[in-house]
Amino acid sequence: MDAEHGGAWAAYKDRYGREPLDFSANLCPLGLPRGVREAAASAILEAEHYPDSACTTLREALAREYDIPVERIVFGTGAAELIWRICQTLRPKTALLPVPSFSEYERALEAVGCDIHDLPLDPERDFEPGEELLTALDERVDLLFLCQPNNPTGRAIQPALLRRIWERCEAQGTWLILDECFLDFLDEPERFTLLPELEDAPHLILLRAFTKSHAMAGFRLGYALCGSAALAEKLRQNAQPWPVSAMAQAAALAALADRDYAARRANWIRAERPRMLAALKSLGFRVIPGEGNFLLFYSEDLDLAEALKEKGILLRACGNFRGLGPGWYRTAIRTAEENDALLRALKERHNG
Amino acid sequence: MDAEHGGAWAAYKDRYGREPLDFSANLCPLGLPRGVREAAASAILEAEHYPDSACTTLREALAREYDIPVERIVFGTGAAELIWRICQTLRPKTALLPVPSFSEYERALEAVGCDIHDLPLDPERDFEPGEELLTALDERVDLLFLCQPNNPTGRAIQPALLRRIWERCEAQGTWLILDECFLDFLDEPERFTLLPELEDAPHLILLRAFTKSHAMAGFRLGYALCGSAALAEKLRQNAQPWPVSAMAQAAALAALADRDYAARRANWIRAERPRMLAALKSLGFRVIPGEGNFLLFYSEDLDLAEALKEKGILLRACGNFRGLGPGWYRTAIRTAEENDALLRALKERHNG
Repeated sequence: MDAEHGGAWAAYKDRYGREPLDFSANLCPLGLPRGVREAAASAILEAEHYPDSACTTLREALAREYDIPVERIVFGTGAAELIWRICQTLRPKTALLPVPSFSEYERALEAVGCDIHDLPLDPERDFEPGEELLTALDERVDLLFLCQPNNPTGRAIQPALLRRIWERCEAQGTWLILDECFLDFLDEPERFTLLPELEDAPHLILLRAFTKSHAMAGFRLGYALCGSAALAEKLRQNAQPWPVSAMAQAAALAALADRDYAARRANWIRAERPRMLAALKSLGFRVIPGEGNFLLFYSEDLDLAEALKEKGILLRACGNFRGLGPGWYRTAIRTAEENDALLRALKERHNG
Repeated sequence: MDAEHGGAWAAYKDRYGREPLDFSANLCPLGLPRGVREAAASAILEAEHYPDSACTTLREALAREYDIPVERIVFGTGAAELIWRICQTLRPKTALLPVPSFSEYERALEAVGCDIHDLPLDPERDFEPGEELLTALDERVDLLFLCQPNNPTGRAIQPALLRRIWERCEAQGTWLILDECFLDFLDEPERFTLLPELEDAPHLILLRAFTKSHAMAGFRLGYALCGSAALAEKLRQNAQPWPVSAMAQAAALAALADRDYAARRANWIRAERPRMLAALKSLGFRVIPGEGNFLLFYSEDLDLAEALKEKGILLRACGNFRGLGPGWYRTAIRTAEENDALLRALKERHNG
């Protein structure tokens, strides 16, 4: 998977016998929320039993959190599994995909034989999603994946445009799958979500997870918030009965209870994002003004990721993203201390 | 899920505030193998990172265990997920299913629009799988699911017959998916597996898990051993990259290291299976001579499961298994003490 995705932390550790500084996965660097370890450890004591198939307690907690009916929530083994399940359930014939974007959309669509039309985001406009999203969205499109903010560019779709895209989707019967897994890293997440539209949105699915926002990638839990209870039931019925482990359910409940985490995350990202953006620019890179917890940049140094790897630092080389190519790199924004280590390594490489 | 499967332990505990005695899930009652809790708890400390997508260490350990190439092993979120993935990958047009059998085979096949032909197991012959399996297996069949021993009947296919079925499958290009999740509970597992044939068996997949044999249902980890590396790769490519949590990988490795567990399990089942079979018979039930860790029995008492539930004991009412109906029950075989508690409750109900 090294070549496919970032986050090969475990493989690196196994191979080199030490933990890398991992900037290749876009995870919140604040660590697990309070109480998660204890809750998950307690769940291990009961791990000889099947987990609750319906994730009842967690489902009720999320329904309260978002003020939506429990029936609208579907759990999966990470948001990635839900991406696949949605494609396998809806089996779209024609789909529209922004390019570049998260590669699992494409993999999952290709697996069901979908005809994929590219929606190129313009590097000259720093990949800002614009009106071209609407122009391409005609009634032949069965499904549209959007990532808010987009991975790997970090750019968000403006609220007014997003709303118009969604309205067009509902009007013409196009499924809109809005991946909000990075939403919580935006400065004003509540402005950029379609959650308020969910009540009457039969063609809308929001994807969320604790993976990135709460640094819980190892647990494998994601969820879909569906604009239709019937669609949610269809998604639930098109999978095995126990997609979420007992540990992941307990961990997610504990994460929800840590009310302080979101505030700490907001403080951290508001400080570190502009600092990293400026620092990378001052090192001479072309940096895309990302709005999430990662930054895409370009360098003439085509061996940069390999060179840093030898120093124990993982960057995401973006050569295998369609729409990008050699020289594009994505770095997570991490703690001030870790970011400084990355910046030092980049400076050394630059001067070396 | 109450109506669909047994093992609703967590839902019962949530609802009634106490743990039931769960005979409805067929899990080894010896608890988690030694070292599993510690290994999983350690993995929680690293749960902010993505799990190893390739399950490298576990894969190597299993490859040594079975003496097969690592490429032949595919991991999933429990064997149940692999059942679904296999159907979604192979998309058989026509399949053959023993009736009664595990209902996920049917659900997963129906989800891909497969035409399912029943292979009724004869209650008059105590559901023993016989030559009728071969008779029905003509070349129009794309895929055959077999469960060894079968759930919920507990009956195993005799080694010679199983080999002939597999040979027929290979000769005519029928996929044979042999679910060996209960294999370890047989008195002579090594005689009843098709593992020795795996080296040159392009149409064979064996399904295994730690779920039942090692009482690890809460972790969600299963694996497929494939007779072809190309097929294994196809299965790996038709899913999200991280189906197995970090905790589950660590737990499975620890389970493998507990060499004593299998011996203890064998001693327990050799003692408790014949005892439970005789005791249930002596209570007047018609008991199917199961060979695994559960027993199917018939009673005129159609409210038996509901009545026991009120006493905190869960049985699997088998009314929703095709080929069975009201009055059929499946009970796991558990520890001597737990079995005694079940027998007492049955006796009370009988006399009450």
